Amino acid sequence: MKIIAFQGERGAFSEEAAYKLLGRNIRVLPRESFGAAFASAVHGQATHCLVPIENTLAGSVYENYDLLLKNRLHIAGEANLRIVHNLIAFPGTTLGNLRQVYSHPVALAQCSRFLARHRRVERIPFYDTAGSVKMLAERRLPGAAAIASRVAASAYGARVLMAHLEDHQENFTRFLLLSKGESVSPQANKVSIVFSTRNVPGALFKCLSVFALRDIDLQKMESRPLRGRPWEYFFYLDFAGNAREAKCRNALSHLREVTNFLRVLGCYESATR
Amino acid sequence: MKIIAFQGERGAFSEEAAYKLLGRNIRVLPRESFGAAFASAVHGQATHCLVPIENTLAGSVYENYDLLLKNRLHIAGEANLRIVHNLIAFPGTTLGNLRQVYSHPVALAQCSRFLARHRRVERIPFYDTAGSVKMLAERRLPGAAAIASRVAASAYGARVLMAHLEDHQENFTRFLLLSKGESVSPQANKVSIVFSTRNVPGALFKCLSVFALRDIDLQKMESRPLRGRPWEYFFYLDFAGNAREAKCRNALSHLREVTNFLRVLGCYESATR
Repeated sequence: MKIIAFQGERGAFSEEAAYKLLGRNIRVLPRESFGAAFASAVHGQATHCLVPIENTLAGSVYENYDLLLKNRLHIAGEANLRIVHNLIAFPGTTLGNLRQVYSHPVALAQCSRFLARHRRVERIPFYDTAGSVKMLAERRLPGAAAIASRVAASAYGARVLMAHLEDHQENFTRFLLLSKGESVSPQANKVSIVFSTRNVPGALFKCLSVFALRDIDLQKMESRPLRGRPWEYFFYLDFAGNAREAKCRNALSHLREVTNFLRVLGCYESATR
Repeated sequence: MKIIAFQGERGAFSEEAAYKLLGRNIRVLPRESFGAAFASAVHGQATHCLVPIENTLAGSVYENYDLLLKNRLHIAGEANLRIVHNLIAFPGTTLGNLRQVYSHPVALAQCSRFLARHRRVERIPFYDTAGSVKMLAERRLPGAAAIASRVAASAYGARVLMAHLEDHQENFTRFLLLSKGESVSPQANKVSIVFSTRNVPGALFKCLSVFALRDIDLQKMESRPLRGRPWEYFFYLDFAGNAREAKCRNALSHLREVTNFLRVLGCYESATR
């Protein structure tokens, strides 16, 4: 059975993403940090880890880009999860007597319109969305609710008082599934790579041209500093294709000619958008 | 006289960068957040604000990229500051009786080798580097020191017990000086822009080709999510040149043809590297 490590408490959005991608027949392993989730997959306590890589409102999760480079795991899949914030409480708290809402500061900020309509309700920042439901499960504070995922409500036996508290519906998080072993399925249609350019004028343009010349569609580009070489960068690129196709293989061998460093992070099935 | 708003307490690295770029004949205005520093320049309490935009170890300061787009300020200059961490204390604390070191978690992490050599010394995370010196100035805890800039030591009348605590010498932060009015000096040799591509295959390649075709050197590229349009991005680009040169003007008008949105953030003198 697959064992999926993720950062956060039981009921985290990462757990919801794991069920969406792999179904319910998995075991989950909550970890304290992203680094610990990666380590679980590297050292075999988990078969995979699942981590957020970008959110359509907040941007990339840069720490996980760095961890992708640091740990030799392969991207085996991805999931796009619509982030739905729910008002979650235990018996004793209703919309009528609501006085305090606990959640992660980012989740509180993403529900600013709901909170503006309920001015008497105090917003209390907490270390984690699902963790705030866990805390209420233990302390049962009357008049207190949490903002978290539907999976967090069911993980702790709480009720959803109201769904869709989020200001923006266009709030999606993209998660990557990572494993130690590499396996490329025939359905794989997306490739992620990381490279560093040579320090010559037009270097990045030359790198991107290997894709443009072959009509390969770029889907995402990110840069991170190259430690110890000030003002130089690693570039992370996602592009459409299967690494076994001639077109992709040629693009990658062409890219090797014009880069200092190149690693394929994975070839996997793209999540539907 | 120039009034420079920055995020942090008196003695912050931003204040050190302001002196490096503008000399000592300025007034400084410490503010609580990056947003407040931008607002001071927008609303006229300050003539300029100075904010970090990237660090060679930690990466871009993404919040400030977003604030560049949100606020209509112009980049008037830049400074690269070598980040030197100093052990700072008041009388009563020496290297011999040192028991506690206060600083921002990032600064503590960047001095991990020094701290590993002094195992009995407790590391205490604090909200700000210069703020930890300010706190010691008020509380005068014996055996306690702070890690901060040299400017912080002199701002609060403290002594530098030891300099260069940082693990990596290649630790630089790049700061941008921003003002409401626009003025392009003849010495300006760097342009910063932000744009969004049309959603067509090869769009980013076409955007970069307007520079490559004119032998214009790209210096930095960053992307941030376009809120409300999932999986689309704003691209921030720095390139060599003066916006008044024909070559740059042509590149920018060519870029307008292949983008949805384009704004010049500033044309300014590049900091020496």
